[in-house]
Amino acid sequence: MADRSEIDALIDLMAKLPGLGPRSARRAVLHLIRKRGLLLQPLADSMAEVARTARECLNCGNVGTSDICAICADDRRATGLLCVVEDVADLWAMERSGVFKGRYHVLGGTLSALDAVGPEDLRIPKLLDRVAGEEITEVILALNATIDGQTTAHYIVDQLEGRVEITSLAQGVPIGGELDYLDDGTITAALNARKRM
Amino acid sequence: MADRSEIDALIDLMAKLPGLGPRSARRAVLHLIRKRGLLLQPLADSMAEVARTARECLNCGNVGTSDICAICADDRRATGLLCVVEDVADLWAMERSGVFKGRYHVLGGTLSALDAVGPEDLRIPKLLDRVAGEEITEVILALNATIDGQTTAHYIVDQLEGRVEITSLAQGVPIGGELDYLDDGTITAALNARKRM
Repeated sequence: MADRSEIDALIDLMAKLPGLGPRSARRAVLHLIRKRGLLLQPLADSMAEVARTARECLNCGNVGTSDICAICADDRRATGLLCVVEDVADLWAMERSGVFKGRYHVLGGTLSALDAVGPEDLRIPKLLDRVAGEEITEVILALNATIDGQTTAHYIVDQLEGRVEITSLAQGVPIGGELDYLDDGTITAALNARKRM
Repeated sequence: MADRSEIDALIDLMAKLPGLGPRSARRAVLHLIRKRGLLLQPLADSMAEVARTARECLNCGNVGTSDICAICADDRRATGLLCVVEDVADLWAMERSGVFKGRYHVLGGTLSALDAVGPEDLRIPKLLDRVAGEEITEVILALNATIDGQTTAHYIVDQLEGRVEITSLAQGVPIGGELDYLDDGTITAALNARKRM
């Protein structure tokens, strides 16, 4: 089927997206072809636009369309608070909650002995520079509650201890969570961090 | 976050794809931004190319890049055999099996009283034209084994009866299927259509 080659090429590319396999990529492409004018062409334009403009913030590692992202450039954000996250997706999740008014630092992953990821492979040197150079009073570690995330948190605490206040997100029962469905580690953490009512 | 507007627009568009929601769209877009050169730009180019070239075959309704699709234009395909399918996805599934050497006719859906889909909303008039005009000896109904699919099959049989041989795909136990996991209807169909060994 020679004349399907462009369509097949698109299916192959779509199948490389996380969460899509060959079957769902075919389904998505058929849907796109049916909605050529409404969806396929706008999506092509939007992707070309993002490919042209997207870049990492030189300061914090967030993804945006300028060398310094909108959060770093925003004067209304508290300069003293720095929230350290693993990934841009985590930054976006924090921003959706809308509760944090400081700035961010995206590490770009976690330390991992297994995958040979050291501090210099992450944005950790840049973090130390920022703590030294900016007027930061508190570093909030918002790393994932995984082994690699906690290892990375410990490493950062080691590096920054005594130079700035370091806090981390509270661990405990999630809002709406049912004890029966929680793992032992979460229950232990919640019990150890219990609060007087 | 003004400078994320292009990225947000892309996320909104991606979330309209079947199988992707807001969360997986965000994940896909972050993945695309990380692989800007390798994936995002090629995907944008490929989509623009498909948006420009994709069209429905005037003869059978298949999706391709010319007015007559590669299958209809292929002299080596048997002219006497016509396989009727609901959807382009079904045609692609038949082609992947590689066993059918005739041509196709894509209905573009099924008859449905509930959704007010009549014969003229589908490519059924065109099917009758083709059976009258082309040298077709056998029409193979490869419609889905759903109520709407079977209603549509019965309607086509009514229209074509006596003018051409009409067959349908066999129903029974799928290859690799376990009886314990099959529904009663499939077991009934398989038992009724049992074959001497």
